[in-house]
Amino acid sequence: MNQKLTPRSENYSEWYTQVVLRAEMADYAPVRGCMVVRPYGWTLWENIQQALDKRFKATGHQNAAFPLLIPMSFLEKEKQHVEGFSPELAVVTVGGGQTLEEPLVVRPTSETIIGYMYSKWIKSYRDLPVLINQWGNVVRWEMRTKLFLRTLEFYWQEGHTAHATAEEAEAETRQMLDVYYDFAVNEAAVPVIRGVKTEREKFAGAERSYTIEAMMGDKKALQSGTSHNLGQNFAKAFDIQYLDENNELQYAWTTSWGLSTRFVGAIIMTHGDDQGLILPPRLAPIQVVLVPIWKKAAEKEAVLPVARELAARLKETGLRVEVDDTDNRTPGWKFNYWEMKGVPLRVEIGPRDVAKKAVVLARRDVPGREGKIFGVPMEEAPARITQMLDEIQAALLQRATEFRDANIHDVASYEELKEVVGAGGWARGWWAGTSEEEARIKEETGVTIRCIPFEQPEGSGRCLYTGRPAEKVALFAKAY
Amino acid sequence: MNQKLTPRSENYSEWYTQVVLRAEMADYAPVRGCMVVRPYGWTLWENIQQALDKRFKATGHQNAAFPLLIPMSFLEKEKQHVEGFSPELAVVTVGGGQTLEEPLVVRPTSETIIGYMYSKWIKSYRDLPVLINQWGNVVRWEMRTKLFLRTLEFYWQEGHTAHATAEEAEAETRQMLDVYYDFAVNEAAVPVIRGVKTEREKFAGAERSYTIEAMMGDKKALQSGTSHNLGQNFAKAFDIQYLDENNELQYAWTTSWGLSTRFVGAIIMTHGDDQGLILPPRLAPIQVVLVPIWKKAAEKEAVLPVARELAARLKETGLRVEVDDTDNRTPGWKFNYWEMKGVPLRVEIGPRDVAKKAVVLARRDVPGREGKIFGVPMEEAPARITQMLDEIQAALLQRATEFRDANIHDVASYEELKEVVGAGGWARGWWAGTSEEEARIKEETGVTIRCIPFEQPEGSGRCLYTGRPAEKVALFAKAY
Repeated sequence: MNQKLTPRSENYSEWYTQVVLRAEMADYAPVRGCMVVRPYGWTLWENIQQALDKRFKATGHQNAAFPLLIPMSFLEKEKQHVEGFSPELAVVTVGGGQTLEEPLVVRPTSETIIGYMYSKWIKSYRDLPVLINQWGNVVRWEMRTKLFLRTLEFYWQEGHTAHATAEEAEAETRQMLDVYYDFAVNEAAVPVIRGVKTEREKFAGAERSYTIEAMMGDKKALQSGTSHNLGQNFAKAFDIQYLDENNELQYAWTTSWGLSTRFVGAIIMTHGDDQGLILPPRLAPIQVVLVPIWKKAAEKEAVLPVARELAARLKETGLRVEVDDTDNRTPGWKFNYWEMKGVPLRVEIGPRDVAKKAVVLARRDVPGREGKIFGVPMEEAPARITQMLDEIQAALLQRATEFRDANIHDVASYEELKEVVGAGGWARGWWAGTSEEEARIKEETGVTIRCIPFEQPEGSGRCLYTGRPAEKVALFAKAY
Repeated sequence: MNQKLTPRSENYSEWYTQVVLRAEMADYAPVRGCMVVRPYGWTLWENIQQALDKRFKATGHQNAAFPLLIPMSFLEKEKQHVEGFSPELAVVTVGGGQTLEEPLVVRPTSETIIGYMYSKWIKSYRDLPVLINQWGNVVRWEMRTKLFLRTLEFYWQEGHTAHATAEEAEAETRQMLDVYYDFAVNEAAVPVIRGVKTEREKFAGAERSYTIEAMMGDKKALQSGTSHNLGQNFAKAFDIQYLDENNELQYAWTTSWGLSTRFVGAIIMTHGDDQGLILPPRLAPIQVVLVPIWKKAAEKEAVLPVARELAARLKETGLRVEVDDTDNRTPGWKFNYWEMKGVPLRVEIGPRDVAKKAVVLARRDVPGREGKIFGVPMEEAPARITQMLDEIQAALLQRATEFRDANIHDVASYEELKEVVGAGGWARGWWAGTSEEEARIKEETGVTIRCIPFEQPEGSGRCLYTGRPAEKVALFAKAY
């Protein structure tokens, strides 16, 4: 525990893995590419779930559960879909000791099975819209894996909706992207960029895919949530038809949208530093840790009840609080430990603080003495702590936004793009290329178009790659 | 929807399936034996989850997530365990297009993979106890399935704990059984009986299994939750060892405990009647439905705002409320519909009620006019509704308890046992038989020992089957 982390500047990937393991967020499972999400990591995910679920329900969605196992033939019904997913499938071929007549796929995503059920449930325009979300696990047989970012099994929510019109489906797709944006910015302090995916990068089976893209601490992009307008593709593949008000049979319009445990990786890589995690207060499993400090038994007797009383007062205000009263570790060890765990605020209480009826507050996001406030009167502590948590939340967002904006560079030519991305930044430039040209850029530079951002400059320009007239700028970056 | 349900007395099994489907609790999935839990059923499960999760956290447990896929060899490490589960396994043999070197089992339960991880995490007595729960899905390849009661995939929680001493493990096992008991009785109004399983009926790999057993409306027993003391069986199979305070290596003592979506079936079959579901108010997705009644447009304009205002006031008090303002159904149709759905309390508001500033309250658990209160002043309605929901909750528990107690009969001989269970009841009698004798009773009568209940009569007696001296009575019943 006291061993130093590999600094981010030295080896970002190694830093990431060490933080995940040492902060006890996750561990490797015995099956290649699978992870165990440990209680500290899962509690963060539960807080993410609550923040999202509240928003899903406020926008009229309900949760349900669809089966894990999908007949192989279902995937084959939507051409793009099966092409996209068939290389990644885990397949159950034996059940109850017998070889199955039709192999079953462990769901990589649930459009097909949900499409099948919707075709049974939806008969009339009165049945629409159907607004359902599912929290669950999916399996994709990835070759190169990394804890939280890409694992064979991961946890997510997948929303699946059906609508009477193309306009409603598009509005839903955009609404849910905005829900993700609101969550990312205001709960996780991750300043994501909204945009639309290119044809090449869209979801297998979608008409149009929207995304929120985040810049990690190493300036690589992380696709953090996606919302897909599926048009009538799955409705036609699974025969989701309804009688409209004129008693005519119509295909429904469907959407799907998902955000996964990958977002835990986004939080770690957006905010973490060389001491470990820094968790945004709104989502942190523990928002405040109290470290009572003593040497002699008499000091412990004086300090511990005061720490516990303050903790109780803080809990009453709804804060998530822990008192570290273990007696086999030094205060310095405990400071390091809770810094590694990314607890946003530490309260130190020693014998002299007790005598002065005061405490010391230490911000996780501002290292050393600069982040400490000494002599905060005990009476004021709860209010000051609540206020400081808000300040930390805002400061994390501001810092990440500044970092992001400082590392996105406008480019006018392919040469400039290569220069910018070669130095690790994101390039933004006019784009009117084809999917083939996009593929060539990826091959030559390793970067992809993360999205065509919603926020666009005025006017138009010339495509940085082809010189053709271009109406939109695209964002190029290396990505996880 | 308006078609009558098959009465319970005519065909209980058919009644059950019809209720589940028509109340839109669940539906059949395209894969044999799998189900889709629809939003109404899943919301009930979410309420069950919250009631349990709160209790788990209050007793010091945290949630985590362990992998879905388990190496086949893991199951083979605990002899009884593999014997118990190997006939029911779903096996992944292909991943990413390749045949796997070692087949992976879709978890039927997680003792083995969690045991493996605990052996990595637990080093010292300071690491103990480990108190972890997991909410998730498991797959068991069952031959005869029934929605919620027995499906290939089901949803549950499984707690897994590790302790330094046998006493602590036993205390944990008993504590979690009491948590289930408290939940079942006080949230679900299902008057379960606590007891210990016989050797023959215990969990594959456990030293001792505790259970809560419920009596369904057809008097069959439903095992509704179990808590297992695993002794050192899994600790030895997976090498979960720790250094004690004397620096000596010891095996840990582990437990596991689970409650599943099967409990949704318990609620349906404990409380439902020939009109459909009756849901206990504490868990009901919708606690109160308001049905505004109108014929002419002017009446609708008078009635609807009043209904909505009352609904808003009820929601402010924290109740889960729905206003049925659809205009293509008659009030009578709506009454039947919400009765089928088991909403505990209905509020009727017609033009005359509005004129009188009053409402009609109708209890789901008391059919017809007897369950109605007319002329409840609007001002008093929220308080009266809250009070009536408490009354309904209590009445459901009382009715189920009386039904249960009226159908458990003391028996002194095998003849009496056969008579009682032949008539569909539960038999209670002194028991000192062996596992072989127990198996013979099952073969001859179809009944099993549900448990040796904690509540025992004074004294001792003669075993009803063997005549041997017996210290305990056992409960015999046919079971789901």
